[in-house]
Amino acid sequence: MSYATEKLNEEKVFKDPVHRYVHVRDRVIWDLIGTKEFQRLRRIRQLGTTYLTFHGAEHSRLNHSLGVYEIVRRIIDDGFEGRPEWDSNERLLCLCAALLHDLGHGPFSHSFEKVFHLDHEDFTRAIILGDTEVNAVLRNVKEEFPKHVAEVIAKTYKNKMVVSLISSQIDADRMDYLQRDAYFTGVSYGHFDMERILRVMRPREDQVVIKSSGMHAVEDYIMSRYQMYWQVYFHPVTRSAEVILTKILHRAKQLHEEFYNFKHQPIHFYSIFEDELTLQDYLKLDESIIHYYFQAWEEEDDPILSDLCRRFMNRNLFKYVEFNPTTQMKDLMELNNLFKKAGLDPEYYLVVDSSSDLPYDFYRPGEEEERLPIHLLMPTGEVRELSRESEIVDAISGKRRTDHKLYFPLDLLQDVSTKKTIKRKILEILGI
Amino acid sequence: MSYATEKLNEEKVFKDPVHRYVHVRDRVIWDLIGTKEFQRLRRIRQLGTTYLTFHGAEHSRLNHSLGVYEIVRRIIDDGFEGRPEWDSNERLLCLCAALLHDLGHGPFSHSFEKVFHLDHEDFTRAIILGDTEVNAVLRNVKEEFPKHVAEVIAKTYKNKMVVSLISSQIDADRMDYLQRDAYFTGVSYGHFDMERILRVMRPREDQVVIKSSGMHAVEDYIMSRYQMYWQVYFHPVTRSAEVILTKILHRAKQLHEEFYNFKHQPIHFYSIFEDELTLQDYLKLDESIIHYYFQAWEEEDDPILSDLCRRFMNRNLFKYVEFNPTTQMKDLMELNNLFKKAGLDPEYYLVVDSSSDLPYDFYRPGEEEERLPIHLLMPTGEVRELSRESEIVDAISGKRRTDHKLYFPLDLLQDVSTKKTIKRKILEILGI
Amino acid sequence: MSYATEKLNEEKVFKDPVHRYVHVRDRVIWDLIGTKEFQRLRRIRQLGTTYLTFHGAEHSRLNHSLGVYEIVRRIIDDGFEGRPEWDSNERLLCLCAALLHDLGHGPFSHSFEKVFHLDHEDFTRAIILGDTEVNAVLRNVKEEFPKHVAEVIAKTYKNKMVVSLISSQIDADRMDYLQRDAYFTGVSYGHFDMERILRVMRPREDQVVIKSSGMHAVEDYIMSRYQMYWQVYFHPVTRSAEVILTKILHRAKQLHEEFYNFKHQPIHFYSIFEDELTLQDYLKLDESIIHYYFQAWEEEDDPILSDLCRRFMNRNLFKYVEFNPTTQMKDLMELNNLFKKAGLDPEYYLVVDSSSDLPYDFYRPGEEEERLPIHLLMPTGEVRELSRESEIVDAISGKRRTDHKLYFPLDLLQDVSTKKTIKRKILEILGI
Amino acid sequence: MSYATEKLNEEKVFKDPVHRYVHVRDRVIWDLIGTKEFQRLRRIRQLGTTYLTFHGAEHSRLNHSLGVYEIVRRIIDDGFEGRPEWDSNERLLCLCAALLHDLGHGPFSHSFEKVFHLDHEDFTRAIILGDTEVNAVLRNVKEEFPKHVAEVIAKTYKNKMVVSLISSQIDADRMDYLQRDAYFTGVSYGHFDMERILRVMRPREDQVVIKSSGMHAVEDYIMSRYQMYWQVYFHPVTRSAEVILTKILHRAKQLHEEFYNFKHQPIHFYSIFEDELTLQDYLKLDESIIHYYFQAWEEEDDPILSDLCRRFMNRNLFKYVEFNPTTQMKDLMELNNLFKKAGLDPEYYLVVDSSSDLPYDFYRPGEEEERLPIHLLMPTGEVRELSRESEIVDAISGKRRTDHKLYFPLDLLQDVSTKKTIKRKILEILGI
Repeated sequence: MSYATEKLNEEKVFKDPVHRYVHVRDRVIWDLIGTKEFQRLRRIRQLGTTYLTFHGAEHSRLNHSLGVYEIVRRIIDDGFEGRPEWDSNERLLCLCAALLHDLGHGPFSHSFEKVFHLDHEDFTRAIILGDTEVNAVLRNVKEEFPKHVAEVIAKTYKNKMVVSLISSQIDADRMDYLQRDAYFTGVSYGHFDMERILRVMRPREDQVVIKSSGMHAVEDYIMSRYQMYWQVYFHPVTRSAEVILTKILHRAKQLHEEFYNFKHQPIHFYSIFEDELTLQDYLKLDESIIHYYFQAWEEEDDPILSDLCRRFMNRNLFKYVEFNPTTQMKDLMELNNLFKKAGLDPEYYLVVDSSSDLPYDFYRPGEEEERLPIHLLMPTGEVRELSRESEIVDAISGKRRTDHKLYFPLDLLQDVSTKKTIKRKILEILGI
Repeated sequence: MSYATEKLNEEKVFKDPVHRYVHVRDRVIWDLIGTKEFQRLRRIRQLGTTYLTFHGAEHSRLNHSLGVYEIVRRIIDDGFEGRPEWDSNERLLCLCAALLHDLGHGPFSHSFEKVFHLDHEDFTRAIILGDTEVNAVLRNVKEEFPKHVAEVIAKTYKNKMVVSLISSQIDADRMDYLQRDAYFTGVSYGHFDMERILRVMRPREDQVVIKSSGMHAVEDYIMSRYQMYWQVYFHPVTRSAEVILTKILHRAKQLHEEFYNFKHQPIHFYSIFEDELTLQDYLKLDESIIHYYFQAWEEEDDPILSDLCRRFMNRNLFKYVEFNPTTQMKDLMELNNLFKKAGLDPEYYLVVDSSSDLPYDFYRPGEEEERLPIHLLMPTGEVRELSRESEIVDAISGKRRTDHKLYFPLDLLQDVSTKKTIKRKILEILGI
Repeated sequence: MSYATEKLNEEKVFKDPVHRYVHVRDRVIWDLIGTKEFQRLRRIRQLGTTYLTFHGAEHSRLNHSLGVYEIVRRIIDDGFEGRPEWDSNERLLCLCAALLHDLGHGPFSHSFEKVFHLDHEDFTRAIILGDTEVNAVLRNVKEEFPKHVAEVIAKTYKNKMVVSLISSQIDADRMDYLQRDAYFTGVSYGHFDMERILRVMRPREDQVVIKSSGMHAVEDYIMSRYQMYWQVYFHPVTRSAEVILTKILHRAKQLHEEFYNFKHQPIHFYSIFEDELTLQDYLKLDESIIHYYFQAWEEEDDPILSDLCRRFMNRNLFKYVEFNPTTQMKDLMELNNLFKKAGLDPEYYLVVDSSSDLPYDFYRPGEEEERLPIHLLMPTGEVRELSRESEIVDAISGKRRTDHKLYFPLDLLQDVSTKKTIKRKILEILGI
Repeated sequence: MSYATEKLNEEKVFKDPVHRYVHVRDRVIWDLIGTKEFQRLRRIRQLGTTYLTFHGAEHSRLNHSLGVYEIVRRIIDDGFEGRPEWDSNERLLCLCAALLHDLGHGPFSHSFEKVFHLDHEDFTRAIILGDTEVNAVLRNVKEEFPKHVAEVIAKTYKNKMVVSLISSQIDADRMDYLQRDAYFTGVSYGHFDMERILRVMRPREDQVVIKSSGMHAVEDYIMSRYQMYWQVYFHPVTRSAEVILTKILHRAKQLHEEFYNFKHQPIHFYSIFEDELTLQDYLKLDESIIHYYFQAWEEEDDPILSDLCRRFMNRNLFKYVEFNPTTQMKDLMELNNLFKKAGLDPEYYLVVDSSSDLPYDFYRPGEEEERLPIHLLMPTGEVRELSRESEIVDAISGKRRTDHKLYFPLDLLQDVSTKKTIKRKILEILGI
């Protein structure tokens, strides 16, 4: 028996709060889970700074990755196997791509990607193709297997049906994270009838389609997604933490460039600050490392760095007001000047954040183009795009809703030991 | 209005997956939640190494502390207030003690306590009474208030009814953790009808009692507890991770004492290794710090330290067999010798672990004596100890069940590049 | 103490699967629950014929009535009491109206109302104001109290805020039935965050409003409602049973008018057939009575009555195809003729059903005008109608979706022992 | 293709609140569900009079029968198929026996069986073997198939493993009803990890065994059962309704024997009163019929019959006190006399009920002997009876707990318009 088809003597199961159990029978999957690079995902939270808003949201990306794998496994084993449109030879490829699709995520990916111009997808590919334990397992299947896995994740694989299983508007990734994030945050959104959706998914030529009898379940899924974005993913408190985190990284980089003498040297950051990041350095970065440095930097002499680190670690976040970029740019400029006069560097203490600035995993401009749309399979055999059939989906599709907020440290403004008049004026403009 | 009775303008709520919402109206509670020392609990997992067995168990002690607070708040506000046996003046004290009862926990408390002879309860007291943000908030209520909070947690407070609310065999602590740990691990045990128990709790002289009509709900709670201990808290895989963690700490201390030249100096551990741990040093320890060091130590030259750290970080745990201390001591001694011959230091690679060796939070010898028993309030007004009324509870009470396992690195024994014969003999004795 | 304010010695609780517990403290409520007329609701299913589609939907209107009461009790006791805009004197009135709002429902209300031109609301009023146990309890509160309760339910009570609590687009009635019907059918729709909605409801002048911070929860509720209507309430199989039921009532009335000699005389129906229905006769009608007659009539000589009764009792329902009244009227007329030729009376065996033909409780044309719209309370204090704030609600509001289906007994058409050619032609037109 | 192996073109699913979906692929199963005799189970409640205590418990036996079928289907299709110890030819037999095991239940079986000395199991056999639609479907499979199905249900079938799947201490019947009854009543007991139990069930020679690694899940199931019995099945209010129901049947029979002139003749009861019940008469009995008569009899002249019927229909039940048959027989005799003097016939108004008097479905003396015990499959391959391995099960097994209560109409005793002194004395003895 070849490694690709090898089964474990006995099925292994992981207890999972969302899917009850995650079932593993394939040796390859079992070996991938045991790799150093996959285990590293335990130290990276699925929802970044969200745990500072929803205290239950402490779950890791490993947690989610197992869930995506399990959904794909069920779609294939319980639904697709045996159908003429389905090529059994793609099964293992799908499972591996599902399990590994988030492998390249670093700590607080969104902020890191923004500040240092990284792309976690590049790292996913690098881990799969590079000198890693994951690569060794995959190569053991077949020489070109790592390449195929990377292609599926990058959406360039030739069999588009396989790609659409892993990334489309209704893929296993999204079905898992909506339910999982709802479970761990405890919000009542994020629920939809996945069982029903799995039952109506069908492989068809170059994509996975949904039988039209399942349209209402899909509508419900779309609405769950909408609610989760605005209730959880774009929550203004989470974004406040994100703003501070981003500013810490900026500040540290700036200080490094200015030859500031750190009490606690940013050794793990050298290569990233200097734009020479290697895969091995990247793999060492996880959220423990970040917390380690931020705790240490609470005691740096630089007042901005230490203040921001204390804020992040002790959840003393920035407050916010609504901000309208069309009508309030003048106010913002005035605030900018007043902050300077008040002794607060506006670069760090007066920040506009827009919800579309959020992590790719959740949403980003242009996403609609990248993820394949949902197609319904009509009783006639015809295939139609969802929003043409569903009034509700039509009503919300294509409408971008943006939300701008202005973040600032209210405590520092209310502390009137100095610059009393200026601070009072700032508060006036902010409408507080 | 005094600080002790100050209410927030608007009630604050935290979304909680277990209790739906945690409600905060008291200024004092709000301020305590915002302290540096309370926020630190976000970086300490509620269930230590359990996340390596149940991947969902990544929730923090902050999570649990809010839950215990909420249960006590509901018992008092929805049940006790207005009853003649209840003294309203104790309300705030109860809430604070509930919120802060776990404040002194460090990272992976059980292992740290065992290796370094610490007691997290000493640290809870030290944080409450020392020079901390928590102490400043409490002192603001009343000069002696911190002392009272510490006494309630230490079970020495004069009003024993207050103590029994916070620590007894059916206190808010246990009711929260059983449900919370069940929720996050995803196991189907740990559920019981807390709503009903809250409805039948009554304040009475020196303790909280349970109306006898609620006896079956209490039986169910006791059974949940029993199941959670054996299915989750004493899970052999969790204990394997615990064994390795303990051995890492041992090894690092030993190397420090032998003046081993660490590539990555254990700066955060100096005072603990040298038995001179201060509160400020202790407060810096959290699980990020531990992960930081363990990752760094994967690259130390000492083969034992680096091997154990790699195992812990990458979840390459020890395997185990049942072990009977009465009949198998001779086997153990023989294995000891064979391990040495095989080049494996038995001090680190051949470990007997007994379930009673587990964290205080879950169980420890003598616990029955420390925690107050459960008393039922009969329709006649009489108070009777639970096991005298319940056959089931009687059947299991007082029966200690111990479980011994022998842990070892199977991979190193199966790797027969060297010492083939010795290793084969070891495996024979282990029955593998 | 007056009867109106009398409390039970000890709170009574009913275990409820949806709200955990229903709490009763008021003597008046307890006495109302014990009346003959309220207990009768146990013999009337909440969802009529839906149990033939979703086998779990066997719950009664008593079940739902207790739930509506509990929601109103929570809104008032946990949210409104103590607020200046809320008049405590209206509390008992609200609770009674909530509990009794469905009191006049008969068995399979929709069909009965349609066939016999009844209105369950008339009967609710008649029971409350007539010579009944319910009236006796209410009159005991105050002479004009029954009248006030009836006015609240009829939406004519002077205090419009009270009315809007009981019937508006987001009243306790709907919040209960969506959740309850979802629970008993087992569908995954029908869930929304009622806890949150209860927290953001505010009494205000002439209506209950929702704080705008709760808008997303309300959107979710609206979507749940939309899904429940199309997935559950308008399910075509349920409507098929409804069609048959309606036709049985029609047939029995017709036979009675034609002096048909029933083997089993429709004694309970005499007054209803002859349009002389009294309250006492009406109160004897429940679903047991209906089932009793339908079982007996399975053995009548009239082939149509016995066939339809057998179909209903044994769930041998009509099949259906989509029907477009605009384009297919000619087909329908042709089918009409062909059915006659085939020996099947089209009056009973060829039925167009439109979803707007369904019970008032769920939906009916004009409902939007009758039920008060939802208003949001903005942070500014302004009150704005929901669809002006919510894109999603705006997208679906006012869009009536109608669904027409043509029902017929496929088994009789496929049985080709006679009229083979005609039946084949019928099937051709039906597209089967 | 033979009828026995015929599959539906497309799988049919029923939405089920307990198992999510019930899946039907086999033509035979589909046809059995459509029979008149199976559909009749919709008109018989699963829990008899329990709906008068737990208002949610309105679910029917059809509901439960589908659930048992689904569990057996999953055990076989997901677990047993493919194992050498399992004979695939028994699959359809198991599914049919599971679906039909409760077919012979009548309305409020327990009371009917007790009063009229019937046995629902006799009727199950009679329906399966008699001239019925069910028999016609089964005979279509194979001439002797109905006989085999009846044997499996009667536990006399030669293949004991098949029997143990349908009736043992941990069979599909019990696993379904514990969960289903918990769901519909809303109690928090009755939950256990069925998924895990299904995973560890193994076919073995003459019985189904449980892998010992699943022992804790089985313990939890046993405890759920214990709790459900005492919290739900033996609830004293349910038993009060049961007592009244039994007395109504007694009274009607007695009146019939005394040639009482019923205003509403008990036509459906003639053959049962005269001990000449036929299968066709029995099949007409359902709970609608019972309710129909009880409502009619509220207006009979016999004061006992009409009073009892009013009580049952309007839930005006008897009250109860604890009763100890060992020490209180003298009290009972005295009460007997006093009741007579007070004008209350003690035969109908003073009733001792013991919990072991409850329906076979839940429990009855001797049950342990009839249902096969649970056996664990040890890692060594040895099979051991559960209570020898589990301390908890050992502690409760074999301990019969009996509960005696004395029921009486408190309202009639408190109404002191006549016989004031005697009534006062009665209340004194009753301790009220």
